[in-house]
Amino acid sequence: MITSAHNEKLKRIRRLRSRRGRERSGEFVVEGEDLVEAAASAGVEPELVLVAGIDVDAALLDEVSTLGSGTRVIAVYRQRWSPAPGGQAASGAPEAVARLCVYLHGVGDPGNVGTIIRSAHALCDGPVVLGPRCADPYSPKAVRASMGSVFARPPAHAALADLGGTKVALDAGAELEIGALELEPPVVVCVGAERSGLPAEIQPGADLRATIPMRPDGPESLNAAVAAAVAIHELANRMAGHA
Amino acid sequence: MITSAHNEKLKRIRRLRSRRGRERSGEFVVEGEDLVEAAASAGVEPELVLVAGIDVDAALLDEVSTLGSGTRVIAVYRQRWSPAPGGQAASGAPEAVARLCVYLHGVGDPGNVGTIIRSAHALCDGPVVLGPRCADPYSPKAVRASMGSVFARPPAHAALADLGGTKVALDAGAELEIGALELEPPVVVCVGAERSGLPAEIQPGADLRATIPMRPDGPESLNAAVAAAVAIHELANRMAGHA
Repeated sequence: MITSAHNEKLKRIRRLRSRRGRERSGEFVVEGEDLVEAAASAGVEPELVLVAGIDVDAALLDEVSTLGSGTRVIAVYRQRWSPAPGGQAASGAPEAVARLCVYLHGVGDPGNVGTIIRSAHALCDGPVVLGPRCADPYSPKAVRASMGSVFARPPAHAALADLGGTKVALDAGAELEIGALELEPPVVVCVGAERSGLPAEIQPGADLRATIPMRPDGPESLNAAVAAAVAIHELANRMAGHA
Repeated sequence: MITSAHNEKLKRIRRLRSRRGRERSGEFVVEGEDLVEAAASAGVEPELVLVAGIDVDAALLDEVSTLGSGTRVIAVYRQRWSPAPGGQAASGAPEAVARLCVYLHGVGDPGNVGTIIRSAHALCDGPVVLGPRCADPYSPKAVRASMGSVFARPPAHAALADLGGTKVALDAGAELEIGALELEPPVVVCVGAERSGLPAEIQPGADLRATIPMRPDGPESLNAAVAAAVAIHELANRMAGHA
Protein backbone atom coordinates (compact mmCIF):
# COMPACT_ATOMS: atom_id res chain seq x y z
CA MET A 1 0.00 0.00 0.00
CA ILE A 2 1.29 3.45 -0.99
CA THR A 3 1.82 5.61 2.09
CA SER A 4 4.12 8.31 0.70
CA ALA A 5 3.09 11.37 -1.29
CA HIS A 6 6.40 11.01 -3.16
CA ASN A 7 5.40 7.67 -4.64
CA GLU A 8 6.07 7.50 -8.40
CA LYS A 9 2.50 6.45 -9.24
CA LEU A 10 1.06 9.45 -7.41
CA LYS A 11 3.60 11.71 -9.14
CA ARG A 12 2.48 10.29 -12.51
CA ILE A 13 -1.15 11.12 -11.65
CA ARG A 14 -0.20 14.65 -10.56
CA ARG A 15 1.64 15.25 -13.85
CA LEU A 16 -1.55 14.36 -15.74
CA ARG A 17 -3.41 17.27 -14.14
CA SER A 18 -1.93 19.62 -16.73
CA ARG A 19 -2.70 19.57 -20.44
CA ARG A 20 1.04 19.59 -21.10
CA GLY A 21 1.54 16.53 -18.92
CA ARG A 22 -1.27 14.73 -20.73
CA GLU A 23 0.06 15.65 -24.16
CA ARG A 24 3.58 14.54 -23.32
CA SER A 25 2.55 11.15 -21.99
CA GLY A 26 -0.54 10.50 -24.11
CA GLU A 27 -2.29 9.41 -20.92
CA PHE A 28 -5.15 10.78 -18.82
CA VAL A 29 -6.71 10.26 -15.41
CA VAL A 30 -10.17 9.01 -14.55
CA GLU A 31 -11.70 9.41 -11.09
CA GLY A 32 -14.55 7.42 -9.65
CA GLU A 33 -16.01 3.97 -9.99
CA ASP A 34 -18.65 4.93 -12.56
CA LEU A 35 -16.10 6.12 -15.12
CA VAL A 36 -13.80 3.16 -14.51
CA GLU A 37 -16.80 0.90 -15.12
CA ALA A 38 -17.64 2.82 -18.30
CA ALA A 39 -14.11 2.16 -19.55
CA ALA A 40 -14.45 -1.55 -18.80
CA SER A 41 -17.80 -1.67 -20.60
CA ALA A 42 -16.12 -0.15 -23.65
CA GLY A 43 -13.38 -2.78 -23.44
CA VAL A 44 -10.68 -0.30 -22.45
CA GLU A 45 -8.06 -1.45 -19.94
CA PRO A 46 -6.35 0.96 -17.52
CA GLU A 47 -2.58 1.42 -17.35
CA LEU A 48 -2.82 1.88 -13.60
CA VAL A 49 -5.58 1.66 -10.98
CA LEU A 50 -5.36 2.88 -7.41
CA VAL A 51 -8.12 2.01 -4.96
CA ALA A 52 -8.31 3.90 -1.66
CA GLY A 53 -7.49 1.75 1.37
CA ILE A 54 -6.21 -1.12 -0.81
CA ASP A 55 -3.51 0.24 -3.12
CA VAL A 56 -3.05 3.61 -1.51
CA ASP A 57 -3.76 5.47 1.70
CA ALA A 58 -7.19 7.12 1.26
CA ALA A 59 -5.98 10.59 2.28
CA LEU A 60 -3.16 10.44 -0.28
CA LEU A 61 -5.60 9.50 -3.03
CA ASP A 62 -7.86 12.40 -2.07
CA GLU A 63 -4.86 14.68 -2.24
CA VAL A 64 -4.26 13.89 -5.95
CA SER A 65 -7.98 13.97 -6.77
CA THR A 66 -9.40 16.96 -8.65
CA LEU A 67 -12.80 16.38 -7.01
CA GLY A 68 -13.48 18.48 -3.93
CA SER A 69 -15.11 15.49 -2.30
CA GLY A 70 -12.17 13.15 -2.95
CA THR A 71 -12.53 9.79 -4.61
CA ARG A 72 -12.32 6.06 -3.92
CA VAL A 73 -10.57 5.10 -7.13
CA ILE A 74 -8.27 6.78 -9.66
CA ALA A 75 -7.13 5.11 -12.89
CA VAL A 76 -4.76 6.10 -15.69
CA TYR A 77 -5.58 5.29 -19.31
CA ARG A 78 -3.91 5.86 -22.66
CA GLN A 79 -5.65 8.50 -24.76
CA ARG A 80 -7.40 7.06 -27.80
CA TRP A 81 -8.33 9.04 -30.92
CA SER A 82 -10.74 8.12 -33.68
CA PRO A 83 -9.61 8.60 -37.27
CA ALA A 84 -11.22 11.66 -38.85
CA PRO A 85 -14.38 10.57 -40.67
CA GLY A 86 -13.72 10.48 -44.39
CA GLY A 87 -9.97 10.79 -43.88
CA GLN A 88 -7.25 8.25 -44.62
CA ALA A 89 -6.76 5.45 -42.14
CA ALA A 90 -3.25 4.40 -41.15
CA SER A 91 -3.57 1.53 -43.60
CA GLY A 92 -4.09 3.99 -46.45
CA ALA A 93 -7.64 2.77 -47.01
CA PRO A 94 -10.34 5.46 -46.74
CA GLU A 95 -12.14 5.52 -43.39
CA ALA A 96 -15.81 4.67 -43.25
CA VAL A 97 -17.75 7.90 -43.65
CA ALA A 98 -20.02 8.79 -40.74
CA ARG A 99 -23.50 9.90 -41.71
CA LEU A 100 -23.46 12.61 -39.06
CA CYS A 101 -20.66 14.07 -36.97
CA VAL A 102 -19.81 17.25 -35.08
CA TYR A 103 -16.81 19.50 -35.70
CA LEU A 104 -15.78 21.90 -32.90
CA HIS A 105 -13.80 25.09 -33.45
CA GLY A 106 -12.63 27.10 -30.45
CA VAL A 107 -14.95 25.43 -27.93
CA GLY A 108 -12.77 26.16 -24.92
CA ASP A 109 -14.97 25.00 -22.06
CA PRO A 110 -14.05 21.41 -21.10
CA GLY A 111 -17.55 20.73 -19.73
CA ASN A 112 -19.04 21.66 -23.09
CA VAL A 113 -16.54 19.49 -24.99
CA GLY A 114 -17.30 16.50 -22.76
CA THR A 115 -21.06 17.04 -22.93
CA ILE A 116 -20.90 17.24 -26.74
CA ILE A 117 -18.93 13.96 -26.84
CA ARG A 118 -21.72 12.37 -24.79
CA SER A 119 -24.53 13.86 -26.91
CA ALA A 120 -22.83 12.84 -30.17
CA HIS A 121 -22.39 9.32 -28.84
CA ALA A 122 -26.15 9.26 -28.19
CA LEU A 123 -27.32 10.89 -31.42
CA CYS A 124 -24.65 10.53 -34.17
CA ASP A 125 -22.71 7.68 -35.72
CA GLY A 126 -19.50 9.70 -36.11
CA PRO A 127 -16.95 10.97 -33.61
CA VAL A 128 -16.62 14.54 -32.36
CA VAL A 129 -13.87 16.16 -34.42
CA LEU A 130 -11.77 18.76 -32.62
CA GLY A 131 -10.42 21.68 -34.63
CA PRO A 132 -8.23 24.52 -33.30
CA ARG A 133 -8.45 26.01 -29.80
CA CYS A 134 -10.74 23.44 -28.21
CA ALA A 135 -10.53 22.33 -24.60
CA ASP A 136 -8.66 19.07 -24.03
CA PRO A 137 -11.26 16.25 -24.17
CA TYR A 138 -9.02 14.30 -21.79
CA SER A 139 -9.04 16.94 -19.05
CA PRO A 140 -10.76 15.77 -15.84
CA LYS A 141 -13.80 18.04 -16.36
CA ALA A 142 -14.30 16.95 -19.97
CA VAL A 143 -13.95 13.26 -19.11
CA ARG A 144 -16.52 13.62 -16.31
CA ALA A 145 -18.95 15.54 -18.54
CA SER A 146 -18.63 12.84 -21.22
CA MET A 147 -19.86 10.30 -18.64
CA GLY A 148 -17.63 7.69 -20.21
CA SER A 149 -18.45 8.37 -23.85
CA VAL A 150 -14.76 9.28 -24.47
CA PHE A 151 -14.12 5.56 -24.04
CA ALA A 152 -16.92 4.29 -26.24
CA ARG A 153 -16.45 6.89 -28.99
CA PRO A 154 -13.05 8.62 -28.79
CA PRO A 155 -12.81 12.09 -30.36
CA ALA A 156 -10.85 12.84 -33.53
CA HIS A 157 -8.49 15.65 -34.49
CA ALA A 158 -8.79 17.21 -37.96
CA ALA A 159 -9.11 20.42 -39.93
CA LEU A 160 -12.55 21.20 -41.33
CA ALA A 161 -11.16 21.07 -44.88
CA ASP A 162 -10.14 17.45 -44.37
CA LEU A 163 -13.67 16.30 -43.59
CA GLY A 164 -16.04 15.09 -46.29
CA GLY A 165 -19.78 15.70 -46.55
CA THR A 166 -22.04 18.73 -46.30
CA LYS A 167 -20.72 21.12 -43.66
CA VAL A 168 -23.45 23.00 -41.79
CA ALA A 169 -22.19 25.86 -39.61
CA LEU A 170 -24.39 26.72 -36.62
CA ASP A 171 -24.69 30.49 -36.59
CA ALA A 172 -27.22 32.47 -34.56
CA GLY A 173 -27.15 35.15 -37.28
CA ALA A 174 -28.12 32.83 -40.14
CA GLU A 175 -31.56 33.07 -41.72
CA LEU A 176 -31.91 29.43 -42.67
CA GLU A 177 -33.45 27.35 -39.86
CA ILE A 178 -31.86 24.03 -39.00
CA GLY A 179 -35.30 22.37 -39.13
CA ALA A 180 -35.76 23.43 -42.75
CA LEU A 181 -32.73 21.48 -43.99
CA GLU A 182 -33.28 18.29 -45.97
CA LEU A 183 -29.79 16.91 -46.38
CA GLU A 184 -28.38 13.65 -47.61
CA PRO A 185 -25.63 12.16 -45.46
CA PRO A 186 -22.80 12.61 -44.74
CA VAL A 187 -23.32 15.84 -42.77
CA VAL A 188 -20.87 17.64 -40.48
CA VAL A 189 -22.34 20.09 -37.93
CA CYS A 190 -19.80 22.86 -37.17
CA VAL A 191 -20.03 24.46 -33.72
CA GLY A 192 -17.97 27.48 -32.67
CA ALA A 193 -17.12 29.21 -29.44
CA GLU A 194 -20.13 30.27 -27.53
CA ARG A 195 -19.59 34.01 -27.30
CA SER A 196 -18.05 34.82 -30.58
CA GLY A 197 -20.06 32.21 -32.46
CA LEU A 198 -18.48 30.66 -35.50
CA PRO A 199 -15.28 32.48 -36.33
CA ALA A 200 -14.96 34.18 -39.72
CA GLU A 201 -11.98 32.00 -40.53
CA ILE A 202 -14.05 28.84 -40.83
CA GLN A 203 -17.09 30.28 -42.60
CA PRO A 204 -15.50 29.78 -46.02
CA GLY A 205 -15.14 26.08 -45.19
CA ALA A 206 -18.84 25.62 -44.49
CA ASP A 207 -21.37 24.79 -47.19
CA LEU A 208 -24.36 26.19 -45.30
CA ARG A 209 -25.03 28.41 -42.29
CA ALA A 210 -28.11 27.55 -40.25
CA THR A 211 -29.67 28.72 -37.00
CA ILE A 212 -31.75 27.23 -34.22
CA PRO A 213 -34.89 29.37 -34.07
CA MET A 214 -35.09 31.39 -30.85
CA ARG A 215 -37.60 33.82 -29.37
CA PRO A 216 -36.95 37.45 -30.31
CA ASP A 217 -37.09 38.50 -26.65
CA GLY A 218 -34.66 35.74 -25.61
CA PRO A 219 -30.89 35.59 -25.17
CA GLU A 220 -28.51 36.13 -28.08
CA SER A 221 -27.33 32.55 -28.16
CA LEU A 222 -27.57 29.09 -26.67
CA ASN A 223 -24.86 27.28 -24.74
CA ALA A 224 -22.54 25.56 -27.24
CA ALA A 225 -23.33 22.05 -25.93
CA VAL A 226 -27.06 22.76 -26.04
CA ALA A 227 -26.87 24.15 -29.59
CA ALA A 228 -24.83 21.17 -30.79
CA ALA A 229 -27.32 18.69 -29.34
CA VAL A 230 -30.40 20.42 -30.70
CA ALA A 231 -28.80 20.55 -34.16
CA ILE A 232 -27.69 16.92 -34.28
CA HIS A 233 -31.05 15.75 -32.89
CA GLU A 234 -32.83 17.72 -35.61
CA LEU A 235 -30.54 16.56 -38.43
CA ALA A 236 -30.46 12.93 -37.27
CA ASN A 237 -34.27 12.91 -37.34
CA ARG A 238 -34.41 14.47 -40.80
CA MET A 239 -31.81 12.13 -42.23
CA ALA A 240 -33.53 9.05 -40.84
CA GLY A 241 -35.70 9.10 -43.95
CA HIS A 242 -32.59 8.73 -46.14
CA ALA A 243 -31.37 5.62 -44.36
CA MET B 1 -12.36 53.07 -1.34
CA ILE B 2 -12.63 49.88 0.71
CA THR B 3 -9.22 48.74 1.92
CA SER B 4 -10.20 46.38 4.77
CA ALA B 5 -11.30 42.76 4.42
CA HIS B 6 -13.55 43.39 7.45
CA ASN B 7 -15.64 45.93 5.57
CA GLU B 8 -19.40 45.29 5.97
CA LYS B 9 -20.05 45.26 2.21
CA LEU B 10 -17.42 42.57 1.67
CA LYS B 11 -18.88 40.59 4.58
CA ARG B 12 -22.32 40.82 2.98
CA ILE B 13 -20.89 39.42 -0.26
CA ARG B 14 -19.13 36.60 1.57
CA ARG B 15 -22.38 35.63 3.35
CA LEU B 16 -24.04 35.25 -0.06
CA ARG B 17 -21.62 32.49 -1.06
CA SER B 18 -23.76 29.97 0.83
CA ARG B 19 -27.26 28.93 -0.10
CA ARG B 20 -28.31 29.59 3.47
CA GLY B 21 -26.94 33.13 3.29
CA ARG B 22 -28.81 33.72 0.05
CA GLU B 23 -32.06 32.29 1.39
CA ARG B 24 -31.88 34.36 4.57
CA SER B 25 -31.28 37.64 2.79
CA GLY B 26 -33.15 37.02 -0.47
CA GLU B 27 -30.11 38.42 -2.28
CA PHE B 28 -27.46 37.02 -4.60
CA VAL B 29 -24.10 38.01 -6.06
CA VAL B 30 -23.17 38.60 -9.67
CA GLU B 31 -19.58 38.75 -10.88
CA GLY B 32 -18.31 40.33 -14.06
CA GLU B 33 -19.30 43.15 -16.35
CA ASP B 34 -21.25 40.99 -18.80
CA LEU B 35 -23.73 39.82 -16.16
CA VAL B 36 -24.08 43.28 -14.64
CA GLU B 37 -24.87 44.56 -18.14
CA ALA B 38 -27.39 41.76 -18.65
CA ALA B 39 -29.15 42.88 -15.46
CA ALA B 40 -29.24 46.49 -16.67
CA SER B 41 -30.63 45.36 -20.05
CA ALA B 42 -33.41 43.56 -18.19
CA GLY B 43 -34.12 46.73 -16.18
CA VAL B 44 -32.91 45.25 -12.89
CA GLU B 45 -31.04 47.56 -10.51
CA PRO B 46 -28.34 46.31 -8.14
CA GLU B 47 -28.48 46.79 -4.38
CA LEU B 48 -24.72 47.24 -4.29
CA VAL B 49 -21.94 47.46 -6.90
CA LEU B 50 -18.22 47.27 -6.17
CA VAL B 51 -15.74 48.06 -8.95
CA ALA B 52 -12.09 47.08 -8.50
CA GLY B 53 -9.78 50.06 -8.06
CA ILE B 54 -12.69 52.50 -7.67
CA ASP B 55 -14.89 51.26 -4.84
CA VAL B 56 -12.61 48.60 -3.46
CA ASP B 57 -9.01 47.49 -3.53
CA ALA B 58 -8.67 45.04 -6.46
CA ALA B 59 -7.03 42.32 -4.37
CA LEU B 60 -9.85 42.47 -1.79
CA LEU B 61 -12.45 42.08 -4.54
CA ASP B 62 -10.60 39.09 -5.96
CA GLU B 63 -10.58 37.59 -2.49
CA VAL B 64 -14.41 37.54 -2.29
CA SER B 65 -14.76 36.39 -5.92
CA THR B 66 -15.73 32.78 -6.63
CA LEU B 67 -13.89 32.95 -9.96
CA GLY B 68 -10.36 31.60 -9.93
CA SER B 69 -9.29 34.44 -12.18
CA GLY B 70 -10.76 37.16 -9.95
CA THR B 71 -13.14 39.82 -11.23
CA ARG B 72 -13.34 43.55 -11.92
CA VAL B 73 -16.87 44.05 -10.64
CA ILE B 74 -19.18 42.37 -8.15
CA ALA B 75 -22.80 43.38 -7.63
CA VAL B 76 -25.55 42.30 -5.23
CA TYR B 77 -29.15 41.96 -6.41
CA ARG B 78 -32.44 40.98 -4.82
CA GLN B 79 -33.67 37.55 -5.95
CA ARG B 80 -36.74 37.75 -8.16
CA TRP B 81 -39.18 34.89 -8.72
CA SER B 82 -41.78 34.49 -11.42
CA PRO B 83 -45.26 33.40 -10.40
CA ALA B 84 -45.92 29.77 -11.27
CA PRO B 85 -47.57 29.61 -14.67
CA GLY B 86 -51.27 28.94 -14.29
CA GLY B 87 -51.13 29.64 -10.55
CA GLN B 88 -52.72 32.46 -8.61
CA ALA B 89 -50.98 35.83 -8.73
CA ALA B 90 -50.63 37.88 -5.53
CA SER B 91 -53.60 39.92 -6.72
CA GLY B 92 -55.77 36.80 -6.73
CA ALA B 93 -56.21 36.98 -10.51
CA PRO B 94 -55.07 33.90 -12.43
CA GLU B 95 -51.61 34.22 -13.99
CA ALA B 96 -51.26 34.21 -17.73
CA VAL B 97 -50.71 30.62 -18.82
CA ALA B 98 -47.44 29.97 -20.61
CA ARG B 99 -47.73 27.86 -23.75
CA LEU B 100 -44.54 26.00 -22.88
CA CYS B 101 -42.51 25.80 -19.71
CA VAL B 102 -40.03 23.47 -17.99
CA TYR B 103 -40.44 21.90 -14.55
CA LEU B 104 -37.31 20.58 -12.81
CA HIS B 105 -37.32 17.90 -10.13
CA GLY B 106 -34.08 17.04 -8.33
CA VAL B 107 -31.78 18.71 -10.87
CA GLY B 108 -28.95 19.28 -8.44
CA ASP B 109 -26.20 20.59 -10.69
CA PRO B 110 -26.20 24.40 -10.65
CA GLY B 111 -24.63 24.59 -14.12
CA ASN B 112 -27.50 22.52 -15.51
CA VAL B 113 -30.12 24.66 -13.74
CA GLY B 114 -28.58 27.87 -15.11
CA THR B 115 -28.19 26.44 -18.61
CA ILE B 116 -31.85 25.33 -18.61
CA ILE B 117 -32.91 28.84 -17.53
CA ARG B 118 -30.99 30.21 -20.52
CA SER B 119 -32.39 27.63 -22.97
CA ALA B 120 -35.96 28.15 -21.76
CA HIS B 121 -35.56 31.90 -22.15
CA ALA B 122 -34.50 31.25 -25.76
CA LEU B 123 -37.11 28.63 -26.65
CA CYS B 124 -40.15 28.89 -24.31
CA ASP B 125 -42.53 31.64 -23.23
CA GLY B 126 -42.81 30.40 -19.64
CA PRO B 127 -40.38 30.40 -16.71
CA VAL B 128 -38.38 27.45 -15.44
CA VAL B 129 -40.32 26.04 -12.48
CA LEU B 130 -38.21 24.53 -9.72
CA GLY B 131 -39.62 21.59 -7.79
CA PRO B 132 -37.93 19.76 -4.89
CA ARG B 133 -34.18 19.18 -4.53
CA CYS B 134 -32.98 21.48 -7.30
CA ALA B 135 -29.75 23.49 -7.18
CA ASP B 136 -30.18 27.12 -6.17
CA PRO B 137 -30.67 29.12 -9.41
CA TYR B 138 -29.07 32.08 -7.61
CA SER B 139 -25.81 30.28 -6.82
CA PRO B 140 -22.79 31.79 -8.62
CA LYS B 141 -22.43 28.83 -11.00
CA ALA B 142 -26.11 28.82 -11.95
CA VAL B 143 -26.16 32.58 -12.50
CA ARG B 144 -23.10 32.36 -14.75
CA ALA B 145 -24.53 29.44 -16.73
CA SER B 146 -27.78 31.37 -17.23
CA MET B 147 -25.73 34.12 -18.94
CA GLY B 148 -28.10 36.71 -17.50
CA SER B 149 -31.38 34.95 -18.32
CA VAL B 150 -32.17 34.80 -14.56
CA PHE B 151 -32.70 38.56 -14.84
CA ALA B 152 -34.80 38.56 -17.99
CA ARG B 153 -36.92 35.51 -17.02
CA PRO B 154 -36.68 34.73 -13.29
CA PRO B 155 -37.44 31.13 -12.27
CA ALA B 156 -40.55 30.09 -10.35
CA HIS B 157 -41.09 27.73 -7.43
CA ALA B 158 -44.04 25.34 -7.49
CA ALA B 159 -45.18 21.76 -7.11
CA LEU B 160 -45.98 19.87 -10.29
CA ALA B 161 -49.58 19.43 -9.16
CA ASP B 162 -50.04 23.20 -9.07
CA LEU B 163 -49.18 23.64 -12.73
CA GLY B 164 -51.80 23.55 -15.47
CA GLY B 165 -51.48 22.06 -18.95
CA THR B 166 -50.30 18.75 -20.36
CA LYS B 167 -47.34 17.47 -18.35
CA VAL B 168 -44.79 15.54 -20.42
CA ALA B 169 -42.16 13.71 -18.35
CA LEU B 170 -38.84 13.14 -20.13
CA ASP B 171 -37.90 9.54 -19.46
CA ALA B 172 -35.20 7.60 -21.30
CA GLY B 173 -37.21 4.43 -20.69
CA ALA B 174 -40.42 5.65 -22.36
CA GLU B 175 -41.49 4.23 -25.71
CA LEU B 176 -43.22 7.34 -27.02
CA GLU B 177 -40.80 9.63 -28.87
CA ILE B 178 -40.91 13.35 -28.13
CA GLY B 179 -41.04 14.09 -31.86
CA ALA B 180 -44.24 12.08 -32.24
CA LEU B 181 -46.23 14.29 -29.87
CA GLU B 182 -48.81 16.65 -31.30
CA LEU B 183 -49.93 18.65 -28.30
CA GLU B 184 -52.01 21.74 -27.82
CA PRO B 185 -50.59 24.30 -25.44
CA PRO B 186 -50.12 24.72 -22.55
CA VAL B 187 -47.41 22.07 -22.14
CA VAL B 188 -45.05 21.51 -19.19
CA VAL B 189 -41.85 19.51 -19.87
CA CYS B 190 -40.77 17.69 -16.69
CA VAL B 191 -37.04 16.99 -16.32
CA GLY B 192 -35.56 14.90 -13.53
CA ALA B 193 -32.15 14.28 -12.08
CA GLU B 194 -29.70 13.04 -14.61
CA ARG B 195 -28.66 9.76 -13.13
CA SER B 196 -31.82 8.51 -11.62
CA GLY B 197 -34.04 10.01 -14.32
CA LEU B 198 -37.50 11.06 -13.36
CA PRO B 199 -38.25 9.86 -9.85
CA ALA B 200 -41.15 7.52 -9.31
CA GLU B 201 -42.77 10.04 -7.00
CA ILE B 202 -43.57 12.46 -9.82
CA GLN B 203 -44.60 9.97 -12.48
CA PRO B 204 -48.21 9.94 -11.25
CA GLY B 205 -48.29 13.71 -11.79
CA ALA B 206 -47.31 13.47 -15.44
CA ASP B 207 -49.84 12.97 -18.24
CA LEU B 208 -47.35 11.44 -20.68
CA ARG B 209 -43.85 9.97 -20.61
CA ALA B 210 -41.73 10.59 -23.69
CA THR B 211 -38.15 9.94 -24.74
CA ILE B 212 -35.56 11.56 -26.98
CA PRO B 213 -34.58 8.85 -29.47
CA MET B 214 -30.98 7.71 -28.99
CA ARG B 215 -28.70 5.24 -30.74
CA PRO B 216 -28.86 1.72 -29.25
CA ASP B 217 -25.05 1.64 -28.92
CA GLY B 218 -24.96 5.04 -27.21
CA PRO B 219 -24.99 6.17 -23.58
CA GLU B 220 -27.92 5.49 -21.29
CA SER B 221 -28.96 9.09 -21.06
CA LEU B 222 -28.29 12.67 -22.08
CA ASN B 223 -27.14 15.48 -19.82
CA ALA B 224 -30.23 17.02 -18.13
CA ALA B 225 -29.68 20.46 -19.70
CA VAL B 226 -29.20 18.90 -23.13
CA ALA B 227 -32.34 16.76 -22.79
CA ALA B 228 -34.42 19.71 -21.63
CA ALA B 229 -33.30 21.86 -24.58
CA VAL B 230 -33.87 19.16 -27.20
CA ALA B 231 -37.37 18.55 -25.79
CA ILE B 232 -38.45 22.18 -25.65
CA HIS B 233 -37.00 22.85 -29.11
CA GLU B 234 -38.96 19.91 -30.47
CA LEU B 235 -42.21 20.83 -28.70
CA ALA B 236 -41.95 24.54 -29.47
CA ASN B 237 -41.60 23.66 -33.17
CA ARG B 238 -44.54 21.30 -33.09
CA MET B 239 -46.78 23.73 -31.23
CA ALA B 240 -45.95 26.58 -33.60
CA GLY B 241 -48.68 25.25 -35.84
CA HIS B 242 -51.24 25.75 -33.05
CA ALA B 243 -50.36 29.43 -32.56
